Parts: sequence; structure tokens; C-alpha cells
Amino acid sequence: MSERIGIVGTGRMGANMARRLKDVGYTIAALYDVQPESARAAAADTGGEVTQLLPRVTELSDVIITVVPDDAAMYAIFREDQLLSNAGGKLFVNCATVTPSVHVDVERMAASAGAQSLEACMASSITQARNGTLYLMIGGKRETFDRARPLLEKMSASLKYIGEAGSAAQVKALVNMVMNINTAGLAEGLGLGSALGLDLAMLRDVFSQTGANSRVLETDGEDMQNRDHDVYFSAEHAAKDSGIALSLARDADLRLPLSEATYEQYELMKRLGLGGLDKSGVSELTFPGRHPQHATAHA
Amino acid sequence: MSERIGIVGTGRMGANMARRLKDVGYTIAALYDVQPESARAAAADTGGEVTQLLPRVTELSDVIITVVPDDAAMYAIFREDQLLSNAGGKLFVNCATVTPSVHVDVERMAASAGAQSLEACMASSITQARNGTLYLMIGGKRETFDRARPLLEKMSASLKYIGEAGSAAQVKALVNMVMNINTAGLAEGLGLGSALGLDLAMLRDVFSQTGANSRVLETDGEDMQNRDHDVYFSAEHAAKDSGIALSLARDADLRLPLSEATYEQYELMKRLGLGGLDKSGVSELTFPGRHPQHATAHA
Repeated sequence: MSERIGIVGTGRMGANMARRLKDVGYTIAALYDVQPESARAAAADTGGEVTQLLPRVTELSDVIITVVPDDAAMYAIFREDQLLSNAGGKLFVNCATVTPSVHVDVERMAASAGAQSLEACMASSITQARNGTLYLMIGGKRETFDRARPLLEKMSASLKYIGEAGSAAQVKALVNMVMNINTAGLAEGLGLGSALGLDLAMLRDVFSQTGANSRVLETDGEDMQNRDHDVYFSAEHAAKDSGIALSLARDADLRLPLSEATYEQYELMKRLGLGGLDKSGVSELTFPGRHPQHATAHA
Repeated sequence: MSERIGIVGTGRMGANMARRLKDVGYTIAALYDVQPESARAAAADTGGEVTQLLPRVTELSDVIITVVPDDAAMYAIFREDQLLSNAGGKLFVNCATVTPSVHVDVERMAASAGAQSLEACMASSITQARNGTLYLMIGGKRETFDRARPLLEKMSASLKYIGEAGSAAQVKALVNMVMNINTAGLAEGLGLGSALGLDLAMLRDVFSQTGANSRVLETDGEDMQNRDHDVYFSAEHAAKDSGIALSLARDADLRLPLSEATYEQYELMKRLGLGGLDKSGVSELTFPGRHPQHATAHA
């Protein structure tokens, strides 16, 4: 474990991955975030140099883990004069949920700089990042995966090599697309149950024992009932991921009406100022009388 | 178990409930179906008089189990001169999935005739009917439930008293609404995965371990991949049940966009002549190139 780790993007996920890697003996050498106070907060736990210079992260690290919000941020950090400056021999592990083709572009640019890159798509949340039990789906060259494997195994309880660069992001987009559909659908079922005056604990129990059961019933059902929308996976993220899936569908000339309706629900949440709620907050749109702008939002 | 049982509606569900009750020692006294050959086929296994006269079913039976297709059929069999002729003291157990208010009407009409009635909504399928392991949700008067309980326990592995007449049908409509959404959503995920050239067995495996998991992934995922749409729960039924839920939502002034999109998918299947397929057949609409009318159906 002589590898020195750099972290680009020290939000909830990135910071907790850094804490985990520190715990298991890695050296956290450098931390970067567009909000320096975020990087400083993480560094207080992990050590490592906080820098606002991306080339400095590359200089100090053997492996650079990137966890940034979107396509634009990925292209920004991988611009020629940024992370890829003097990047020969370095390994980039990119954990952002972005459009699959971005991973293909980044792999090509990294190769031009003599570096390796891997996509590591996460289908889990903050607690799993902290505990090293992420569900990680890997895309990229097999030899790069083999190099990164010891590190990835410390981060993950379930490590899955999917295929070439971009393929893990495709699978991730599909996972989240289906998850978002099930979430928005569950909110409709519980919302209508509430309108009918049914006991929602009973209704959730029946759902759990029948064809209506789903993972999101376990994770989000009670939160929908109790309006407990503390964020694990935000409505904004849900909109983004469903949007990525829909763009793949358009490229494939497929029409996916449920996915479209789900995307519209999460976009509506954003317009109503609810984009920062957890995805379970979609129930604010479907329960009778919950949101003051509900009636006008229908117009 | 001296009670004599009449069965009205000897389709797949009714006939197998009759076989089950015969196995555990009940006397099947009378069988009725609009298609007499169906009643005769069931009677070959269970004994009992096959009749085309509904008052004769009531005359021969203490408890009459009805399993008919829709609201119209329920009103038809409970017309004054039909099952409710000389029905004093008889118990009707109504298993059809119908609009909740129908159960309220039937309970009132039965009471006027000196009879009792109960709704027994099933959230399971043919095998469970045959084996007496149905998931049964009961609506009606508690005292009527208590009378019917020994019989219902022979039919069910999971017996749930929900509340007054109509409430079990409401819960059933919600279960099937959410199940149908999850099914149509899963078909979109697998369809897009197929368009992207992903290994669908791998994709289903990832779904099963992540937030995309659901009961319908277990029951319908592989069938969608293999185009195995032998009917357990038909697309027509899915359209009907989602339609019932949407009508409840309209009455409650709720807008449920995913449920609407799901209903439209199952209605589209009917228009394309696919209504007799299992609900998993919704994948025929979402996988690339599966259905010849697909392109035009989008227009």
C-alpha cells in the first residue's frame, strides 16, 4: 500500500472514500475541491495537502480518485493543462455518474498523456463509501482494472467488472433509471392510498408481500409517509441520471414513456425548489395537499 | 366442514380454488360459468352440479364463491332474480378484482336479501389458488369475516382483514397499479440495455443487487429477456387494474403520471393485439425491433 492517493471532489462521497482509504492504511496525499473548505474538512481527518491546483494533485499522487458532479466538471478536470499535466504512469479512477461517452473520451485523453483511467460507477451511498462497502461497477481496460483491484477491493463489498470504458456508466444509468421509476411509482401508490384514507403502514406491509415489492419500498416507503426527505440521493441527481438514460434511449431511437414521466416529475421538483430533497421527496408531488404549488404545477 | 360450496366463474382461478377446497374436504355443490364446458371441466375433478341457473347455485350452496371478470359481471350475477334469489342466510365471497364501490353495492344488496357478503381480493395467481396459499385481503363486516374465516384459511397462506367493504379492492388496485408501473419500468430498463448491447443476464443481476431491485424483476425479468409471455397475469388485466386505480385517483383529484403512462402502455398492447400476453409482454413495446407495428404505434 505504498500508493499515494489524490482525491478530486471532496463532497459527501469523495470525503468518505478518503476517510475509508486512510483507515485501511493508504496515504492520502492531496485533496482538491472547488470549495476549498470542503477539502480542508476532509483533510482534517485524513491528512494530505489541500490544493487548488489540479496538476499538484497529480504530482503528489499515484492514484487519483475523481468524484465530480457532472459531464462538464469531468471535462474541466481532464483538460490538457489540469490533471493530465505530467501524468505519465498515473492511474485515474473516475467515480462520477456521467454520460457514458465521457468515460470513453477521458480514457483516450489519459492514454495520450501516458496515464491509465478507469470508470468506477457507484450504486450505493455515503455509509457504504465510509465503510468500504460500495457497490462498484468498473469499466475500462482489463489490465487497468487488475492494477487498481487491490485499492478498489478496499472500497467495495461488491466489485463488478462490466466491460470497456463507458459500459459501467451505461449500467449505472439503467439502474438509476429503473430505481427512479420505482420510486416515483411508489410515491403514486402511497399518495393515492393516503387520499383514500388507508392505513399507510398496512399498505406498505401489503406492498412488501406482493408484486408491488421493491428495494425502494424498503428504503423510501416509510420516508414518503413521514415526509422525511433528508438527502441520500437527491431529486436533482435523480433527474440527471434519468436524463442520461433518456439521452441513451433517444440515440437508440427507443421511446420510454415511464422514464420520461419520471424525469418530468424530478424536473418538476427542481422547478418547485424541491431538487435538494431526497428522491423520496417525489411523494410531495403525489400526496393529497402536500405542496402549496401542487395545484398550479398541474396547470 | 359441512358447508356446501358453490363456485360462480370456473376460469383458471375459480376452478383451482374449487379443486383446493375439494382436496381439504369441502363439498363442491354447484358450479356455474358463462362457458358451461369450463364448469364441466372443473366438475370432473371436484364433483358438484353444473348449472346455467344462478338461483340454483344459491339453492345448492351455503357459501358461494364468485370469481368473475369485471364490474358488469358482478352486477349481472347479483341482480335481484339471480344469485340473491332466496339467499337468506347464505354467504357470498367475492374474489373478482373490481371497482371498490361495487363491493359496497353488493354488500348492501346481499343484506337486503338477508345474506352476507365479503370481498376477498387475491394478490397471487393460479398455483397459489391450487395450493391454498393465496394472499387474500378481506373487506366487509368483521362478523362476516369471522364466519368465513375457517374456509378462507384453507384457501390462503396469508389472510389479511383490511376493513369495510371496498377497502380490500382499493388496496388490491394500489398493489397492481404499483406492480404494473414496476413492470413497465423494468421493461424499459432491459429494453434500453438490449439496445446498448449489454449482457442482459448481467444487467438483471446488477438490478437485483441495487436500488433497481423489485419483485417483478424476479418474476418477469428473465421472461422479458426470453420473450416468454405465457400468461399468469394478462396485459388486459393490467390495463383494467391500472384503470381502476386511475379512476380512484381522478375521484381524489390526484394526478399520477407514471400510472397514466403505464395504463397507456397496456392499452397500446391491447390495440396491437397483445392484450392476451402476460404483463411481462410490455417488453415487446420497449425492446429494439421486437414488434413490427412498433414504429407506427409511436406515431
